Amino acid sequence: MSTPKLEKLSFTLQATDGYARAGIVHTPHGDIHTPIFMPVGTRSALKWLTTDQIRDIGAEIMLVNNYHSYLRPGTEVIESFGGLHNFMDIDFPILTDSGGFQVFSLGLGMQNDSWEKLAKVTEEWVYFRSYLDGSKHFFTPESVMDMQCAFGADIIMAFDECAPGGSSKEYAHAAMERTHRWAERSKAEWLANEEKRREKWLYPQALFGIIQWVVYDDLRVESAEFIKNLDTPGVAIGGLSVGESKEDMYRIMDVLAPHLPKSKPHYLMWVGTPEDLVEGMYRGIDMFDCVLATRIGRHGEAFSSYGNIKIWGEKYKFSQDKIPMLPEHETSVSRRYSLAYLRHLVNVWEATGGLLLSLHNIEYLLNLTKTARVAILAGKYDEFRERFWSVYPGRIG
Amino acid sequence: MSTPKLEKLSFTLQATDGYARAGIVHTPHGDIHTPIFMPVGTRSALKWLTTDQIRDIGAEIMLVNNYHSYLRPGTEVIESFGGLHNFMDIDFPILTDSGGFQVFSLGLGMQNDSWEKLAKVTEEWVYFRSYLDGSKHFFTPESVMDMQCAFGADIIMAFDECAPGGSSKEYAHAAMERTHRWAERSKAEWLANEEKRREKWLYPQALFGIIQWVVYDDLRVESAEFIKNLDTPGVAIGGLSVGESKEDMYRIMDVLAPHLPKSKPHYLMWVGTPEDLVEGMYRGIDMFDCVLATRIGRHGEAFSSYGNIKIWGEKYKFSQDKIPMLPEHETSVSRRYSLAYLRHLVNVWEATGGLLLSLHNIEYLLNLTKTARVAILAGKYDEFRERFWSVYPGRIG
Repeated sequence: MSTPKLEKLSFTLQATDGYARAGIVHTPHGDIHTPIFMPVGTRSALKWLTTDQIRDIGAEIMLVNNYHSYLRPGTEVIESFGGLHNFMDIDFPILTDSGGFQVFSLGLGMQNDSWEKLAKVTEEWVYFRSYLDGSKHFFTPESVMDMQCAFGADIIMAFDECAPGGSSKEYAHAAMERTHRWAERSKAEWLANEEKRREKWLYPQALFGIIQWVVYDDLRVESAEFIKNLDTPGVAIGGLSVGESKEDMYRIMDVLAPHLPKSKPHYLMWVGTPEDLVEGMYRGIDMFDCVLATRIGRHGEAFSSYGNIKIWGEKYKFSQDKIPMLPEHETSVSRRYSLAYLRHLVNVWEATGGLLLSLHNIEYLLNLTKTARVAILAGKYDEFRERFWSVYPGRIG
Repeated sequence: MSTPKLEKLSFTLQATDGYARAGIVHTPHGDIHTPIFMPVGTRSALKWLTTDQIRDIGAEIMLVNNYHSYLRPGTEVIESFGGLHNFMDIDFPILTDSGGFQVFSLGLGMQNDSWEKLAKVTEEWVYFRSYLDGSKHFFTPESVMDMQCAFGADIIMAFDECAPGGSSKEYAHAAMERTHRWAERSKAEWLANEEKRREKWLYPQALFGIIQWVVYDDLRVESAEFIKNLDTPGVAIGGLSVGESKEDMYRIMDVLAPHLPKSKPHYLMWVGTPEDLVEGMYRGIDMFDCVLATRIGRHGEAFSSYGNIKIWGEKYKFSQDKIPMLPEHETSVSRRYSLAYLRHLVNVWEATGGLLLSLHNIEYLLNLTKTARVAILAGKYDEFRERFWSVYPGRIG
């Protein structure tokens, strides 16, 4: 069981190189050296992996989904353990998201095909039906803060509305303003909960506000300034990586970079790919998360320094080669296992294959952030970025 | 890649306590301290696990299935790597079975329901159809030895016929005599292959003969004496655990125990359960293997010192208890994770749940053999056995 220090989250900015930053996020469960990739344990577990395995390859924090934890095992179960750290028996930092993304992606996305609307947004609450059994649920900013308080993550997220990438400017503006009001309500509830936590001598949690919205530059800047002024311990950028083009994504990051608070960690949600990490760090992002690494891994696809590899190909049947990597990004899997062996495992649907590829993909993203950190500290991020793109295909950034 | 010592397999008998034995099997890839449980990597991989994970919990040898390796990835792939050790990148001992069990269990078992016989036995060969695609294949004792030579395991098995548990005595007798003739042919081919391996400076392999057959005591004894006289480096007992009752199984082991060669390791195939290990070691068995530990683990069932637990039960929803174990048999999982957390993982079908239970179940069987070994070395096997049965339900032995 964990014995966290009673310290508030703080951020030490160690170095900058252009917009790229190296720092340390100090949390009650330990330090996180940024920039960092955060593996995702959707339902209080990393898919096909143990927490020991991601710790062994250098993970310093993991993400758990509020929405899934709320549905199963349920808030009351995790609360009875005093939070996720004890429930999962891990002693390193956890971040919980707010569940907003799941409410909307698992709800509104099906609206037109359903006999009944699966989600509905009002000023006061969001109504949605469980993706599991159709049961009815309401989330409010306050209820979501209370859940995350019960889950006990070191970093918690404000409740936000995630509108689709193709929203009209009118809707995007209304959703942004609602999300800002929800951010204020989230902050008020978080502060009230912190008072209660202090009375019980529980370690503090840190709220991150979420900058909204989609592809309209002026709204983005307005949202960044609003969230900066809200003065939460960290800021997140939401609403990217939900259908917009890479050009749009990078452009928005360019627009946002000057508006992000320098003294606080910047978290880009649901990103992502090796190239998006490299381009995100270039634009001042400190923290990333995405299920892509494990999702494609489970299906037999590996990140490599030279682009993705579909491991099941017949051409790898006898291959004694390893997953091709730049030397500084080699992983415990790419150093060890032949393509022929990995291909065999994937080909016969042995989960060990997806397990090893999930590990490899996570370790590569971790290695990218760790070597980038070294480069930033040395003032050599441009070299790092050029070396990455010298072998990685499809440069856009 | 592995760099095995060029030593033949040998066996050191360190202590006996009744029929129970403690010893060391010396193999080209390292020593195996017996009695020992061997985890099974059916298709060149442990289901849902890495080889690192079973090494961490004390495994000293693993089993790989000849039949599955022959079909996928195919003998030529593994041979091109110089054997399974290099293909899987492991440096500890491997045992391959002969494939007989799979040929018959996946073949003859379906005979009456099929449009064509899926397997056929003659004096010369066994014909069978692949369980994957119905393609036609022939195994002979010689071809099976050649495959196992290519796979390069430290211990290889003679090719045997596995008749169903309910065979008539007449059929059992004929199958036994055929299996004996196949054992002689297996030995001749193995010795010829060993000559070739020596020329290439490859490490030696050790053949185990297999004692046949089912529930007829006189045939069992006859087979034990035959295999003993065949003088292979080790002996296995086959044909148990294929439908006979536990009473029959233990009685046959009682009958066999005096006929097993004292100077060689005794391997009881496809066994098994905690109680069968305890009763097997009592009757002179040194090595066990079974997929049960991982199969029930993947489906949410845990061995415990007090009998099996079905983890998904609602009664464990809030349980902060661990899997109940005698202190000396606690595992890395039973020391760490609550029943509520394991139940949650199993309940939401997160593979991490089955992974952790597979690890737990294997570690418990390893702990049983390791603590039994300590007891045998101290002349206290009876105490060990009584303590096991003092809490484990359903004593038969």
